[in-house]
Amino acid sequence: MAKTISFARGAPSLDIVDVKGLRAAAEEAFESDPGGMTAYGTAIGYAPLRAWIAERHQVAPEQVVVTNGSMQADAFLFDALVQSGDSVIVERPTYDRTLLSLRNRGADVRMVELEPDGIDVAALERVLAAGARPKLAHIIPNFQNPAGYTLSAEKRERLLELAREHEFTIFEDDPYVALRFEGAPLPTMLSIDPGETVVYASSFSKTVCPGIRVGYLVGPAELIAKVVKIATQTYISPNMVSQAIVHQFCVSGAIDNSIEVVRKALHERADTLCEALERELPDARFVKPQGGYFLWVDFPRGTDVAALFEAAAERGVAFVKGSDFVLDGGDSSLRLAYSGVTPEEIEEGVKRLAEAYRSLSAVADEDAA
Amino acid sequence: MAKTISFARGAPSLDIVDVKGLRAAAEEAFESDPGGMTAYGTAIGYAPLRAWIAERHQVAPEQVVVTNGSMQADAFLFDALVQSGDSVIVERPTYDRTLLSLRNRGADVRMVELEPDGIDVAALERVLAAGARPKLAHIIPNFQNPAGYTLSAEKRERLLELAREHEFTIFEDDPYVALRFEGAPLPTMLSIDPGETVVYASSFSKTVCPGIRVGYLVGPAELIAKVVKIATQTYISPNMVSQAIVHQFCVSGAIDNSIEVVRKALHERADTLCEALERELPDARFVKPQGGYFLWVDFPRGTDVAALFEAAAERGVAFVKGSDFVLDGGDSSLRLAYSGVTPEEIEEGVKRLAEAYRSLSAVADEDAA
Repeated sequence: MAKTISFARGAPSLDIVDVKGLRAAAEEAFESDPGGMTAYGTAIGYAPLRAWIAERHQVAPEQVVVTNGSMQADAFLFDALVQSGDSVIVERPTYDRTLLSLRNRGADVRMVELEPDGIDVAALERVLAAGARPKLAHIIPNFQNPAGYTLSAEKRERLLELAREHEFTIFEDDPYVALRFEGAPLPTMLSIDPGETVVYASSFSKTVCPGIRVGYLVGPAELIAKVVKIATQTYISPNMVSQAIVHQFCVSGAIDNSIEVVRKALHERADTLCEALERELPDARFVKPQGGYFLWVDFPRGTDVAALFEAAAERGVAFVKGSDFVLDGGDSSLRLAYSGVTPEEIEEGVKRLAEAYRSLSAVADEDAA
Repeated sequence: MAKTISFARGAPSLDIVDVKGLRAAAEEAFESDPGGMTAYGTAIGYAPLRAWIAERHQVAPEQVVVTNGSMQADAFLFDALVQSGDSVIVERPTYDRTLLSLRNRGADVRMVELEPDGIDVAALERVLAAGARPKLAHIIPNFQNPAGYTLSAEKRERLLELAREHEFTIFEDDPYVALRFEGAPLPTMLSIDPGETVVYASSFSKTVCPGIRVGYLVGPAELIAKVVKIATQTYISPNMVSQAIVHQFCVSGAIDNSIEVVRKALHERADTLCEALERELPDARFVKPQGGYFLWVDFPRGTDVAALFEAAAERGVAFVKGSDFVLDGGDSSLRLAYSGVTPEEIEEGVKRLAEAYRSLSAVADEDAA
């Protein structure tokens, strides 16, 4: 069988990682701050990078904590805010690892339908009116994982109103924000309401590289102090070497070039994927993403995506089943990540996927005959 | 006031960190495995480093997990093994962060006295005979933190017997092992009993640098698999960039040079400290360490080390109070770390400490008059 083409993992291919720039940033970091990057440091993260992030978000450094990747930041935040039994709102579908992390903590997870312009705020209002008292609402506003959808400006405002009115925190989880390839950028909810309502998370995994494991939280200083205390007890301090490298990568401007390269490549890959799906798989319904890594496909009701998964694997193409991103249902949907595949691989991968899809109908026809 | 001389933090001074070697290792890593070090990887850690560690300990790679520093490894291990209410044996005194981590998990922590040749195994036997059913015994065998003491060969054997007989796991926490400056190295408990009895932890913080945040666990494959699962759910993967740098630092042999430099410097610092204490503070009782970062001082019973701490701070010298390393008591003891101070600073620091000590007696004499 030919090498598997993977639409499964949300990770960049090596050709869009600026290895040369990273190497130069490492040299420069060891040159300019050997003491700061080799010592323990503290759980706030590498102070110059923390200051750089604070400046970017126009907040005080005390409102920022830099962690070993943003999953670790999420874990600390949930440790600080979510007790077993607490109600938490998430989008439907949502990132499977967040879902698992919340469920492992015994959170009472309520999914609210995600629409192409973001979470269904009317449905959320009904949930709140019915008496739900969420502690937290987890929202991925831009190019959502897994759906690729983006929260509209109107819904951002409405969500903030609901959060203030019903006294819950919005966890604005925004790792893909820099990867917009068309349309105008929308303001973060953090920037609209820089008070107590929003905790914002992002990461350098998509703009520098995942292996560098640098993520961060921005939020109210008191909450960040609580997170820092948990982080200290967990690991003393995060990785100073990699955070110093990221800092040099940022201040040198390499990050802007890197983002341009990534954006351009992802734009081309998304276009290729959409065109190939339209041509090869007319049954697939999807919204063309304006940025990010992912595209969500709904097949006609009754399509057995679990069977499609097997048929696709046999033909050397991988994806993640929609059911992984919801508490129940999602059986006729799937997620395609186009971040780690070249346009040529996308063309070939969609052909294989279409063949797998047709093989299901053939079986269904035989069963009906 | 003169700049504070700190015997407080167990961290190396910059002059004994091989910055040049680290920089070269970073260059080599980006050159030889850009794909492996910039991608997510998995929670087992950077595979070539994992293999190198496995080889060093003569175990299978499946018995090793490489983490973001060894504190994080401890946290995962405790998550895997220690439930609230579980009995855990620790040394008295012991590392304050481990103590806090266990207490935060609701463990029933039992301290067993530490003697100059290691934990009092006779006392441990009495605790076990009285019905204690510990899940885990946390042991720092070499140049213990905070005491600087080393577990004898006989006691290593006896501890293993007790662990097998009473079915508890020995957590052999061994970050200082490479830093022996006199006497013959003793076998690790892991190497004596490579079965199910021992989980071993170590780190590159003391042999490479702390800011690189690379630690690891070695243990039974099944337990390590459990830890890997927890690690995956916490952070997907640890820092690949820093682990790839450590890997190059190891395979190039730079680590052996680094260890030699550190050992030599620490030996000199320990000698200087012991001589200065004998000369300036004849009331101080201590055991000369054979390696590592720390020396434990017992003052005559009734000495108020909390008051000494204040008097020392006024004179520009810092240490950690003995009471931080025990559940109760330790009031006339303290820990001196000589890892981050030069011989000149040690001479001056001990003079200041002696002056602070004499100021206490003066106050006591006045009170008595």
